[in-house]
Amino acid sequence: MAASSSLLTYSLQGHVSTPNTIKFREGFMYGNLYSSTNSKYLTNPKFLHNRNSSKLENFDKSSVRNEILCRALEIENSISPVLVSKKFELDDVIEAQQFDRETLNYIFDVALDMEKIEKGSSKSQMLKGYLMATLFYEPSTRTRLSFESAMKRLGGEVLTTENAREFSSAAKGETLEDTIRTVEGYSDIIVMRHFESGAARKAAATASIPIINAGDGPGQHPTQALLDVYTIQREIGKLDGIKVGLVGDLANGRTVRSLAYLLAKYQDVKIYFVSPDVVKMKERFGERIDLYEQARGKYIVDTNVLKVMQKKAVVMHPLPRLDEITVDVDTDPRAAYFRQAKNGLYIRMALVKLLLLGW
Amino acid sequence: MAASSSLLTYSLQGHVSTPNTIKFREGFMYGNLYSSTNSKYLTNPKFLHNRNSSKLENFDKSSVRNEILCRALEIENSISPVLVSKKFELDDVIEAQQFDRETLNYIFDVALDMEKIEKGSSKSQMLKGYLMATLFYEPSTRTRLSFESAMKRLGGEVLTTENAREFSSAAKGETLEDTIRTVEGYSDIIVMRHFESGAARKAAATASIPIINAGDGPGQHPTQALLDVYTIQREIGKLDGIKVGLVGDLANGRTVRSLAYLLAKYQDVKIYFVSPDVVKMKERFGERIDLYEQARGKYIVDTNVLKVMQKKAVVMHPLPRLDEITVDVDTDPRAAYFRQAKNGLYIRMALVKLLLLGW
Amino acid sequence: MAASSSLLTYSLQGHVSTPNTIKFREGFMYGNLYSSTNSKYLTNPKFLHNRNSSKLENFDKSSVRNEILCRALEIENSISPVLVSKKFELDDVIEAQQFDRETLNYIFDVALDMEKIEKGSSKSQMLKGYLMATLFYEPSTRTRLSFESAMKRLGGEVLTTENAREFSSAAKGETLEDTIRTVEGYSDIIVMRHFESGAARKAAATASIPIINAGDGPGQHPTQALLDVYTIQREIGKLDGIKVGLVGDLANGRTVRSLAYLLAKYQDVKIYFVSPDVVKMKERFGERIDLYEQARGKYIVDTNVLKVMQKKAVVMHPLPRLDEITVDVDTDPRAAYFRQAKNGLYIRMALVKLLLLGW
Repeated sequence: MAASSSLLTYSLQGHVSTPNTIKFREGFMYGNLYSSTNSKYLTNPKFLHNRNSSKLENFDKSSVRNEILCRALEIENSISPVLVSKKFELDDVIEAQQFDRETLNYIFDVALDMEKIEKGSSKSQMLKGYLMATLFYEPSTRTRLSFESAMKRLGGEVLTTENAREFSSAAKGETLEDTIRTVEGYSDIIVMRHFESGAARKAAATASIPIINAGDGPGQHPTQALLDVYTIQREIGKLDGIKVGLVGDLANGRTVRSLAYLLAKYQDVKIYFVSPDVVKMKERFGERIDLYEQARGKYIVDTNVLKVMQKKAVVMHPLPRLDEITVDVDTDPRAAYFRQAKNGLYIRMALVKLLLLGW
Repeated sequence: MAASSSLLTYSLQGHVSTPNTIKFREGFMYGNLYSSTNSKYLTNPKFLHNRNSSKLENFDKSSVRNEILCRALEIENSISPVLVSKKFELDDVIEAQQFDRETLNYIFDVALDMEKIEKGSSKSQMLKGYLMATLFYEPSTRTRLSFESAMKRLGGEVLTTENAREFSSAAKGETLEDTIRTVEGYSDIIVMRHFESGAARKAAATASIPIINAGDGPGQHPTQALLDVYTIQREIGKLDGIKVGLVGDLANGRTVRSLAYLLAKYQDVKIYFVSPDVVKMKERFGERIDLYEQARGKYIVDTNVLKVMQKKAVVMHPLPRLDEITVDVDTDPRAAYFRQAKNGLYIRMALVKLLLLGW
Repeated sequence: MAASSSLLTYSLQGHVSTPNTIKFREGFMYGNLYSSTNSKYLTNPKFLHNRNSSKLENFDKSSVRNEILCRALEIENSISPVLVSKKFELDDVIEAQQFDRETLNYIFDVALDMEKIEKGSSKSQMLKGYLMATLFYEPSTRTRLSFESAMKRLGGEVLTTENAREFSSAAKGETLEDTIRTVEGYSDIIVMRHFESGAARKAAATASIPIINAGDGPGQHPTQALLDVYTIQREIGKLDGIKVGLVGDLANGRTVRSLAYLLAKYQDVKIYFVSPDVVKMKERFGERIDLYEQARGKYIVDTNVLKVMQKKAVVMHPLPRLDEITVDVDTDPRAAYFRQAKNGLYIRMALVKLLLLGW
């Protein structure tokens, strides 16, 4: 369980106030397996602690054998919300674990207000005169446009660069700290995308203006995690007592990691990490790209999967998607991924408002 | 006549309501030929149906022999304006043939109003709160700046990317439809430049907000065609009964094709397609690049050409120019190409206004 | 003294109204030499005309021998300010020598006002409705962001391109003049960065709107020079009677050249040009890159240098810095380089205000 369990350990280690209430269970998902051309799916999925458990007797074992590439890890927490003294005093947005539950609720309330702002209203000009600098050391047009839209929807202005790597290029050779000291002279808030884990924290330590981490290499992407959790609340109506399946290449996904941090703040959340075994293999035998490619496309959400999915379920995706979700799923009301992208706008509007005008 | 005639057939096929009123005539331009170092030109040019016609007796045949690389195709139409029920209901700007005459007139009236908007006036803020996304899959700084200027001149804001190809790059692999669904969540109107013909139509089929085609590969560039026709009206004062010579590499020019679509909407327009024969040859023998290079620079507008040109003639060019027009022509009042570029701003202001605030 | 003296000659030739008051003295800097791991420095530095002067007897000659790579050139001017008839009629900002003393003072007064503009005030919207085009033929994110911030801090808007080279690319092949004529149709002021010396002047000769030179190849970078002089005035309180040491690769620095032009406008300014001899050698023997690399890092300002520096001295740097100034210097009140960068914003705000709204 190298991939998933190391992920999980990393995710929750040291960031949970009452760790003794978390239950870890490693095992397999089982159920009545159906196969179609593009995907496999289970009806009434259940978590199986021990593969040789007698419960398996009730199921078609051959189906389970077909699932050999899949393992699941269940966690369940019952964490009470912890009030921290620093609440509503966030100066920067650096990583998911900096938010406590109360702060999250407050951000979500502000995000909901943002959905209602109308063109031409005074609220749509609340950031007039403020300047955001988007400092992207690697291109990420989607994320950049979302932040810039957030700023401009509130009447603020933006200085853009997708060329920030030029600052630290061989020819110019400037340290990140020097770049930040220069750019903070031109702007009121910096949204930074960097290729190195920890870069955002380093920038925040230097800057006298707010820094928002828009992804720092394999590290964190906290606003993505915030919009994921906000989307669950908007779609399901609650965050306590939910069951979340995280599917895919969990070992390499900073999106999943940041999300796991946030979900651990809520009560009785069950998270199922479902990933191909080959992702583990890939870790142990890095050269086995062939196995990874073989596993790709094994987990596809299509209309057959929708048929056996609960009516109140929600299908989310950080986008861009490749073949993980077929396009005929898009029209299903449970397909939330484009609403999720839009929620990213509202979350980012809320964050820039809170960081610039106060909590 | 492969090049020109196939172009023309393509241009008008199926888009003309009264095709029987069009006359096609293939032949040669003739006149008194003058040669200078850089160019050849004819005084009193006339269209000659049959090269062996007796009319040629009146002219210096050696001159005509010198013109062997040039052929011309004349068309004349007398189309009545057709009122279509869809008028003033355009949701997108995708291709030249979507506009009927009445819609064109309306757009031109709005463009004329745009010329008069003054800084600091309330009209200069009519698009306050609106967001345009310029989604360029290939760089075209000139076109992008024109659209962004149009939006900002009306108080609107812009999200820019010349890096849109990143969305669909190998690593990200997103479909155009998914990209559009994401970007429409951040903006109110999308101006798209793409490298594939038909991309704009595909985007418009997906989007719930207006799409403007800023060029899709070898396909269309409708706003360029609109500004060309608007420029003729502004310079000449009318569009019916005009004579237009389209000179150059007609086979490869989407600008010329889109323009031909629009000119076909007006009455008694005579269009002369003038192109080097080698452009045809290039089509049949793609490898004869040497011939094409040989033909390049054969049609140069210089001050000698101006001398024999009508006083009320207009010299237009989509820009950028290479050596087709010499710089000493720029000061001549008939040189309209920089005014033409400026007209592009007014046309685009009119279009974004109409698409966002209504027709 | 090839490097420095040719620089100096070039700097002042023809631009000084009373050249007979300038004294040139070539020689060496001497003093009590201290060495640390990273740098060498002199206490109570004095200028020595003749290396074999008897004054050297008072010093440790071995120290001076250690300084063999360093030579200095002192100039002293006592120029009276000259009132020129063109004052306050600048239409463009092209080169440092176009400014007379009175104009400089006026610009600095406006820049000081700019420091006091508050968010939401009417002054912060003085350029509302105005459009700047930043036309960068080579990327310079720092300079571009500074100009764009200046424009937006005053309520103006910006059309951005770091891709301007596309205009003149092999495929498009447009002349700079044609590009300017097109872009001036979209904007009210153009800030241009170009890779060729003289490009800004050429653009200004064509344009009917103001051009600001944001660096043209090895030529000029006048706004950098203006902010340097403004910083001296802000830090020291005066410009007459000051002593300025210009240290580094003087032969290749357009920043230094533009600054020398401006300092020559003030009275009793002593400028010490201090550069490694190898920079000269590099000029005579261009292949001796090894010597240049050897010289690099010889002049490092660190805390040891600060200890022997005057209390009212100012350490400036155009940024980005490599290893010329150690980071522990940053907290010293005499370290002015980040304030200097910020002053660049105020100077540029002043310039766009003056060029767009009048002098």
